Order: sequence, then structure tokens, then C-alpha cells
Amino acid sequence: MNVTVWNEFRHEKKHDAVKEIYPEGIHRVIADALTEHGYDVKTATLDEPEHGLTEDVLNNTDVLLWWGHLAHEEVDDAIVEKVQKRVWEGMGLIVLHSAHFSKIFKRLMGTGCDLKWREANERERLWVVDPSHPIADGIGEYIELDEEEMYGEHFDIPAPDELIFLSWFQGGEVFRSGATFKRGNGKIFYFRPGHETHPTYHNKQIQQVIANGVKWAAPTKRDYPVYGNAKPIEKLEGYKED
Amino acid sequence: MNVTVWNEFRHEKKHDAVKEIYPEGIHRVIADALTEHGYDVKTATLDEPEHGLTEDVLNNTDVLLWWGHLAHEEVDDAIVEKVQKRVWEGMGLIVLHSAHFSKIFKRLMGTGCDLKWREANERERLWVVDPSHPIADGIGEYIELDEEEMYGEHFDIPAPDELIFLSWFQGGEVFRSGATFKRGNGKIFYFRPGHETHPTYHNKQIQQVIANGVKWAAPTKRDYPVYGNAKPIEKLEGYKED
Amino acid sequence: MNVTVWNEFRHEKKHDAVKEIYPEGIHRVIADALTEHGYDVKTATLDEPEHGLTEDVLNNTDVLLWWGHLAHEEVDDAIVEKVQKRVWEGMGLIVLHSAHFSKIFKRLMGTGCDLKWREANERERLWVVDPSHPIADGIGEYIELDEEEMYGEHFDIPAPDELIFLSWFQGGEVFRSGATFKRGNGKIFYFRPGHETHPTYHNKQIQQVIANGVKWAAPTKRDYPVYGNAKPIEKLEGYKED
Amino acid sequence: MNVTVWNEFRHEKKHDAVKEIYPEGIHRVIADALTEHGYDVKTATLDEPEHGLTEDVLNNTDVLLWWGHLAHEEVDDAIVEKVQKRVWEGMGLIVLHSAHFSKIFKRLMGTGCDLKWREANERERLWVVDPSHPIADGIGEYIELDEEEMYGEHFDIPAPDELIFLSWFQGGEVFRSGATFKRGNGKIFYFRPGHETHPTYHNKQIQQVIANGVKWAAPTKRDYPVYGNAKPIEKLEGYKED
Repeated sequence: MNVTVWNEFRHEKKHDAVKEIYPEGIHRVIADALTEHGYDVKTATLDEPEHGLTEDVLNNTDVLLWWGHLAHEEVDDAIVEKVQKRVWEGMGLIVLHSAHFSKIFKRLMGTGCDLKWREANERERLWVVDPSHPIADGIGEYIELDEEEMYGEHFDIPAPDELIFLSWFQGGEVFRSGATFKRGNGKIFYFRPGHETHPTYHNKQIQQVIANGVKWAAPTKRDYPVYGNAKPIEKLEGYKED
Repeated sequence: MNVTVWNEFRHEKKHDAVKEIYPEGIHRVIADALTEHGYDVKTATLDEPEHGLTEDVLNNTDVLLWWGHLAHEEVDDAIVEKVQKRVWEGMGLIVLHSAHFSKIFKRLMGTGCDLKWREANERERLWVVDPSHPIADGIGEYIELDEEEMYGEHFDIPAPDELIFLSWFQGGEVFRSGATFKRGNGKIFYFRPGHETHPTYHNKQIQQVIANGVKWAAPTKRDYPVYGNAKPIEKLEGYKED
Repeated sequence: MNVTVWNEFRHEKKHDAVKEIYPEGIHRVIADALTEHGYDVKTATLDEPEHGLTEDVLNNTDVLLWWGHLAHEEVDDAIVEKVQKRVWEGMGLIVLHSAHFSKIFKRLMGTGCDLKWREANERERLWVVDPSHPIADGIGEYIELDEEEMYGEHFDIPAPDELIFLSWFQGGEVFRSGATFKRGNGKIFYFRPGHETHPTYHNKQIQQVIANGVKWAAPTKRDYPVYGNAKPIEKLEGYKED
Repeated sequence: MNVTVWNEFRHEKKHDAVKEIYPEGIHRVIADALTEHGYDVKTATLDEPEHGLTEDVLNNTDVLLWWGHLAHEEVDDAIVEKVQKRVWEGMGLIVLHSAHFSKIFKRLMGTGCDLKWREANERERLWVVDPSHPIADGIGEYIELDEEEMYGEHFDIPAPDELIFLSWFQGGEVFRSGATFKRGNGKIFYFRPGHETHPTYHNKQIQQVIANGVKWAAPTKRDYPVYGNAKPIEKLEGYKED
């Protein structure tokens, strides 16, 4: 399993508070965690050529993780299209936190992907509502995060195929925090927590969920479906090929 | 309920076989059927200015029906964007037959929307698999169409919210023929049959399904959700407005 | 549309605090609200013969509402079976609050239907997460109830077909508060709020949701599906009837 | 992973045509296939004491497969209850062919689980409609079975969580042939083919699907959810423990 962690990697360069938590970038912390979980992990960031997502990198990625916030608009449409194509071909995609507003997520969802938000260092509690789901493996009744950004409903996504986590926030809101979708041959997991000013990705349970998500999103080994004009399989009287 | 039936309206001008079945266009037959079912119906076609979908028309449409085939690429992206915005705001959308490949459907689904097809005048049988669904109201166990174009799986759509009809085809294929989706505040119903060389839209049961779909897709009366920065509802110690 | 509101009607006789809020029973308040919303409403209670649910009553009920708490075990299995049969035939069922533990709901779900609970007069906020759903018609972003019993996840139900409301509770929990299911030809809506010591069913928004639920759960007009041994529709060589 | 294959094992003793195909029973062929796929497999049959499903066997089963047809009613309710409890606790369950009418499946579904059927040695073609699903791993566009019993819609089950296979039948019917459900902490996969007079379980692709199903249905490692009266996690003014 080849995993690529993509990060915008701007906050960590600009903002001291973020740099302190993620000195080498959010992607480094996630990549290290996934390496510990036994995956073969590479990273890629916005300011590399082709955002680090060359055709070669994408073709050799089984599951891609995506973190972005400040610079969604700077992501090249041609790269977004390639990522979408790879998801359709079977590559897994883990969409993290503020990447709800990334071009790739909005394009795959077909909705606005908007939500309520507040940066108030409030408590979040992510409750497991699908106890049989492999993404909840090894996780207790809930994960509590002392301080996080709030995301609140309505979250403008299609009804998820599966809903795994629901968040409670101190300020009075709830949120569908862990949700899965399928598009083409690819599986998508959106996971809410991970604001850059909080050490969320250092949390072992959060790392466990992300590692579970990667495992779940692994591509299925099948030929790409055949589309287009099709000869009948059964005998059809009067059928003539063009 | 204000209904607008949109049709590409090209086959009916070019091809005698189609003109014979739909002399005033597919949209006219569907519009007449919906009028009989008690709706206030208008039509719009590709070659009208703004494809007949001016801001005024769209803003006064509760449910839009869409039939297209030859000229998906000629539909102006700006109009597609407006239709998408209206769906997100709550307008219902009924996507008919070859409109599976329309820009608007692909954009709302986030997938390629491809499928297998064959024009061989073969028998189709649409089985009801969700007997409690209002879109199946008044419909028997199945609808049989003597001659239709075949559409076969894999149909590259997200897993539908609801699956209402499954088609059997004489040549050996199956297809998810009636399926619902929600995007933003809007409801979407995809309904497979309706190839231009067959009198499918003259069929009373097909008309019933479409009328049921319009009723089901009616907008819900609610304010548009509020997104963006949100003050806490509960008292949050230390919270200060920016 | 014939609606029957079924209530256990025990708390209201035994407990003064409840009697004060619902002097003629919870069923009376709900029935009055539904009458105002234009439905033809009857009531039935546990201590009537056959719990008020004679074959005649059930056969003439389009949508049945169910509230129970203390005496689930006193409900006769034969009546439960009849209710289940009617749901399978198309009767709508609205399951209210503590009826999550009723025999009929558990039997229709196939799960234990357990949950966390706490009677602490705490604040509940029901957020709308499916803005396009007719059950949310006329409802704002959320419904706030000053004092309610808490129900918390994990709620042991199958993944709902549709999730409409998510509850936030002051004590730190969340709950899937408004959810739909289908069984056979019948539609089921579970709606969480309504503890007997709180005036929840006097709340106009709660009444609106219940009225919307009744409308949504109305039976579809179709023949009951045909099951069992079936002759081929297509010509099958060598097929002989038994 | 400990797998138990349960079989009614009556046809194979009574009917020569079946004995010829499955001389040691359907369970033996499935068990051998799963052993080849790397699982630790045991078998159990109806006529053993406690149907071979003692508490010890059930407690040590990660995934249970179930084939039954003639003798659903002979399965002891107490055993059915234990199996249900184990599914709720996390044990996976693979329900095969005519076990759609088993007590355990009906109880877990909450529906009648009826369908159309015909024994006419006709062709079945199982089309993959969820290409990203791990249960479709290694499977082509469709699996073709030269001769099988027909099962036709309407199949009276709840809307599946996931729909993986759709069957086409020569006689004109379709069927939702591969479908997943979750109940409590357990995962359930229903897979249609496998009539006793056909060599279906000798088919390598069918074996692959069943092995994939076993892998997918593996229990998640988590503590059983906590239910019942719950203390507030957040500080609630005025809250007193009973």
C-alpha cells in the first residue's frame, strides 16, 4: 500500500503558533503516524512542481490524504482533474478538516460543501455511531479533543454512504465528522478534526482513525468497468452489428 | 407547482423517425402529460436564447425536467452553473434517459455517469424494488416496454439515496433505472427510459412515474441554511467576537 | 388520511407532574395538533380492549403513531404482530421517544434499539441535517427545547435510510433524533423528543415535525407485491409448469 | 479468523441429484474453499446437538455462514436468539441463497424476506454495481451461471446499506443478489446463488465472492457500546446522581 500525504503547507511556514505544533508540516506528522502503522508513505505539498502530484506519483498512490485551507484556489485545475480521474480509477482519498472546501472534494461531492465554523478553542467530542465499521476499529465510545475549531451543521454534502462519527461541540453545535462516500471505483473518507492551531494530528486516537481510513480506502483489484456500445450477450433476433 | 420541461429538441427536427413520434418535440408530450396531472407546465429548449432558462424562468421553476443527447457540449457552462445553484437552493430536477451524460447531472453527481448502451429495439422491463416509494405510486410490479434502447451496468453514479426501479433487458443486462439523490436543498430523480426513436413518453405508466417524480421533487419550504462564521449558542468562557 | 395516535397512557394517570402537562394524555395533545393540521385523527390506548387496536381500527389506519414507556411488555404479542403486518402492507408508523424500546420498533429494526439516557432537565437542540426532506418543511435551522431527557449515542438501530435531525445535549452527548426506515410497503419515522415530564408535544415546531412525518409516511397506492412461485415472463425453452 | 459454515444438510442426504453434486454436503465444499482462501474453518449442521452451534462454538466464531431451505422451522428459537446476540456483538454473518427465509435473517431484517422463485435451470448473470466494494475484489464485470434457480423482485428486505450484485435472469426477472446490512456491531452479507441442484458452490468466482464476504464481515475490535443511564460528561448545573 502506497500512501501519499498531500498538504498545502503554508500555515506552518507563516504562523509561529502553527510552526510550533507542526515544525515540519502537518503532512510530516501524519506521514510518520502512518509509517508507524505500517504503510509506505510519501508526502507532497502545494509549492512543489505540479504540487508534488506528478502523473507518476498519482499512478503509484493507492490512497491519497489531502489537507488544505488557505490556498484551495491555487491548486491547479489540471491537477485536480488528474486526482479526480485517479479516484474514479480506484485510488482512495482521505479528506481532512478544512479540505472540505478543496476543489477536489467539492468536485467529487457535487455540492457546495459549506458549513458553520468558529475558532474558539472549544471542546469537541466525536461519538462513534457505526460501531461495526472498520474505521472505528480500536476506538472507544468517543474521542475527546480539548480544543478544536468548531464545524457545525448544516454541512452541505450529499447524504454519506456511511456515517461513522458525530461531533458534539461545547458551543452548541453538532457535525457529521466522519463520513464515507464512493465515486467510480474509489472510496472517500472525510474526517473533520485537524485545525492547524491545535495538536490534533499528534493525538494517537486521531492517528488510529486516519490509519483505519487508509486501510478501508485501499483500492479493490478489478479491471476498470467497460462502458459504451455493447453487443448483446443473449441472442437478440434481428440484431446486426453496425 | 411550476414545472419546466427542458429539451435539447434537435433529434425531432433532424430525424424523420423521431419527428413522427414527437412532432412537436419530446418536451411537448411530457409537458402535456404533466399538465393532465395538474401541474403548471412550461417548456424550454436548447436553441432559445439562454436555452430558455433565463434567471426569471429558473427562479420561478419548482421542478425542472431535463432531456438531452446530441448536444450536451452546447449547453452553456454559465447556464449549467445557474441550474446547479437552483438545485442547491431547492429546485427539484428530473433527469431523463440520455441526460445521464448532461453537464448538469455529471456536475451534481461528481462521477463520470457512463454506462453501456445498445440500440437494438429490445424489450425492457422496469421492476419496482421500493414498493413504499411515492414515485412508484399507482405502478404495477413492473413496467414493460416493447422496444427501447438498452442501458447496462456498470452505471457510474454514486450509490443512490433510494433505488426504485431496476431494468431487465432482453440482451442480458440490468440497470438501476430509477434512482434518487439529494444535493444541497434540492432533490434529483434519474429515470432511464425515453430513447427518441421509441414512443416511451406516450406510455401512461411512464407518464405516471414522471408525474410522481415531480411531486416527490417539490421544494421544501425552509430558509436557506446559514453558513460561515458562527457565534456560540451556548456560553463559551473566554469567547470574544472578532 | 386516517391517523391513529396510540399511547400507553399510564404516566398521565399515575404521576401528578405528568398529569399537569398532559391532563388528558399525551395522545390527546398530539391528536389535537394533527387535527389542526387537517388530519382525521383517532386515539387508542393500552388499557382499552385489544389496546384499542382492533383489526378494524388497524385496517382503517393510514398512519399510526406510537408512544410507550413503562409497559412495553404488556403489549400483547398478537397485537404487535398485527401492527407489523399492517406496516408491511403499507401503513405508516411514527415511533415517538421512549417507544424506541417498544416491541414493534425492535421487531421492525432487527436490533436491540438501546441507547444512553439521563433525566436531568437539560437543553436539547435538534439540528436539521437533511434540508431537502419534507419532514423538515417549515422548520428552522434547529429546534431548541429548554428541558428534555437526554438520549445519547450509540443508538442501536440499523443505519437509517435518511437522517433528518441530530440532537445536541448540554451534558455532552449527541443523538440521531429524526430518522426514517422502510419495511415492506410501509414507512417508519422515529422522532426522539417527548419525555412525559416535559411539555414537548405542546411545542408548535415539534407538532409541525410530527405532522410532516404523518404526511411523509402516508401509504403508497399499489397492489401488494406478488411472491412465490413465478412462471417465466420470457419464453424459456424446456420450461414446463408443475 | 475463525469461520463456521452452518448447513441444514438435509437435501444432500435425501436427494440423489444433490448428493451427486455435494456428496459431503454444501458446507464441506464451502468450507474447503474458505480453507484454501486461508481461513480457519469449522462446520456445523442442523442435526447435531444444538445444531452444532453451542455457546462455545458461537463465541469462537468470527464469521458464520448460513445455508438452509427445507427445515427453517426446525431451527430452535433459543439457538436463533444466540446467533442474533452474537451478530449484535460483532460476529459477521453470510446468508446464502434460500437462507433468505431463515429465522435468523428474518429476525435481523424486520421484514418478511419473501421473493419470487422458479426452478427452471435458467441462466443467471450477476452484474457488479459497486466496483469499489471489497466483496467484488477480483471479480469481472459479471458472473455467469449457466443454470440456477430464479429469485425475482420484489425481494422484501430493507433497503440494503450497500448493493453489490444485481442478477439478470433468462425468464425476465431481476434480483438484488449481493447486499450488505449492519445490525448492532455485526456485519451481514446476503448472497443469492446456490440452489442445491446446481454446482454453484464449486464455481471459483462464487467462492471468491464468499471469501471476500468473510473478510469484509470480520468483527471490528472495539468494546461493546455502553447503554443505559449515563452521567453527564459536561458539568450540568443542578445535576444530582440518584
